[in-house]
Amino acid sequence: MSGIFYGVGVGPGDSELLTVKAVKVIEQADIIIVPKSGSTQDSTAFNIAKPYIKPETEFLPMVFPMAGKQKDWTDAWVENREIIGKELDKGKKVVFLTLGDPMFYSTYIYVFNLLKEANYEIYTVPGITAFCGIASHVGFPLVEGDDVLSVLPATTDEETIEQTMKYSNNLVIMKVSKNTNALVEKLKENGFKNAVLVSRCGLPDEEVIHNLDDVTDAKVNYLSTILARRN
Amino acid sequence: MSGIFYGVGVGPGDSELLTVKAVKVIEQADIIIVPKSGSTQDSTAFNIAKPYIKPETEFLPMVFPMAGKQKDWTDAWVENREIIGKELDKGKKVVFLTLGDPMFYSTYIYVFNLLKEANYEIYTVPGITAFCGIASHVGFPLVEGDDVLSVLPATTDEETIEQTMKYSNNLVIMKVSKNTNALVEKLKENGFKNAVLVSRCGLPDEEVIHNLDDVTDAKVNYLSTILARRN
Repeated sequence: MSGIFYGVGVGPGDSELLTVKAVKVIEQADIIIVPKSGSTQDSTAFNIAKPYIKPETEFLPMVFPMAGKQKDWTDAWVENREIIGKELDKGKKVVFLTLGDPMFYSTYIYVFNLLKEANYEIYTVPGITAFCGIASHVGFPLVEGDDVLSVLPATTDEETIEQTMKYSNNLVIMKVSKNTNALVEKLKENGFKNAVLVSRCGLPDEEVIHNLDDVTDAKVNYLSTILARRN
Repeated sequence: MSGIFYGVGVGPGDSELLTVKAVKVIEQADIIIVPKSGSTQDSTAFNIAKPYIKPETEFLPMVFPMAGKQKDWTDAWVENREIIGKELDKGKKVVFLTLGDPMFYSTYIYVFNLLKEANYEIYTVPGITAFCGIASHVGFPLVEGDDVLSVLPATTDEETIEQTMKYSNNLVIMKVSKNTNALVEKLKENGFKNAVLVSRCGLPDEEVIHNLDDVTDAKVNYLSTILARRN
C-alpha cells in the first residue's frame, strides 16, 4: 500500500490561521519535508506549523532548486522524487509545508507536478493567502460586486503592470521593494485612491501605510504588499 | 466596556477548512447573526460553522438588503446598526459568518463599513476563498512565477472580460452560469489551454470538467467556477 503525499498551506504567519484540516494532517504526519534552500520563507512555514508537529514526527531535509517553468526536471529534482517515492512506497504520510496557499505562487506547485507525473497519491490542503490575511488584518475590503481583482508581482514587466491597472478596479501588488516611487506614481495616475502598503504583517515590526503619499522607497524596508481600489 | 464585532470567514464548504482562529471565535461567541435574506449562501455559511457553535450561543436573525455601492445607508441598514450596537454596548461578542473570505466579494464588507463608521471595535478573521479551495481539491495550480492572476465574475461587462483575458495569464472566473458557450469560445481564442470548470465543489453532486470542449451551456447546471492558465 502506497502512502500519501500532502501539500499543506500554513497561511500567512499566525499559527492560528492554519485550517482545522491542516492541523490534523500535520499531527498525523510520519515525515515532514524541511526544505534546505536556506531561504527565510521555508523556515517561516516550518515555524508557523511547529505548535502542531508531534515529537515523534521525522524530518526529511531536502534541497529544492529553482524550477522555473521548465518541463525537464534537473537531477536534483529527480533525486528528490526518488527519496520521497521511497518513503511513500513504505506507506508513509509525507507532508510538505508551504507559506500561504499551496497552489498560489509556491514551490509546492513544482513538487506537486513532479509527484503527479510519477502517479503518486497527492492530497493538497488549501491555506489563507497573504493578501487575504492582510486585508482582514488592516480592514481593507479587497473586491465587491462585479469588479475584477488582479494579483500581480511588482517584479513583472511594465506593460503588464500598466494594462492590469487599466482594466482592474482592485489590485494586490506583491513583492514590492525597489522602484516603489514609480509604482505609487502609476497607481495615482490610474486613479487608485484607496490603497494600503503593508510590510511584515502581524509581526512586532509590522508597518502599515494608509496614504500613498507617504510611501517612498526610503520607507519600504522589506518585501511589501500593496492593496488598492479605484472606487 | 464595549463588545467586539467579529467577521469570520468559514471558507468554501468543508467544516475542516475553517481556521483554528475562526473556530475559537465561534466557540466564544455570545451572539451569532443569522441573515434572514433566505438566500442559500447565508444558510450555507451557518451550516459550515455549526459543528463549532456552542448550545448556549444566542442567534440574532437579521435582514441585510442588497447594499450596492451606495454611500447612504437605507433605513434597514441603520436599524441593523442599532440592533447590533445595542448588543455591543452590553459588552457582547457578536459574530457575523461569511462564506469564503470576509473581504472578498462578501456582504460582510457592507456590515464592516457600517460598523466602522460608527466606531465599533471590529475583528475580522480571514477564510479560505472558494477558488483556493477548488484549486487544491482538483489539483490545478493557480499562478506561478511573475504571472498575473485575475479574478472576475462572469457577470461583468464584455470589454472587461476581453481585456482581462488579454493581459492575465491566469484566470479565476466566478459565477459562471449562462452564456457558458461564449465564455469558453473566448477562453480558447485567447489561448487558455489549461482550464477546469467546477460546480458544487466537494459536495456529493460535484461536477468537474477538465476539457473546455466538454463545457456547454447544457452541462452547467449550477453557479460554477472556471480556473484557467494560458501557459
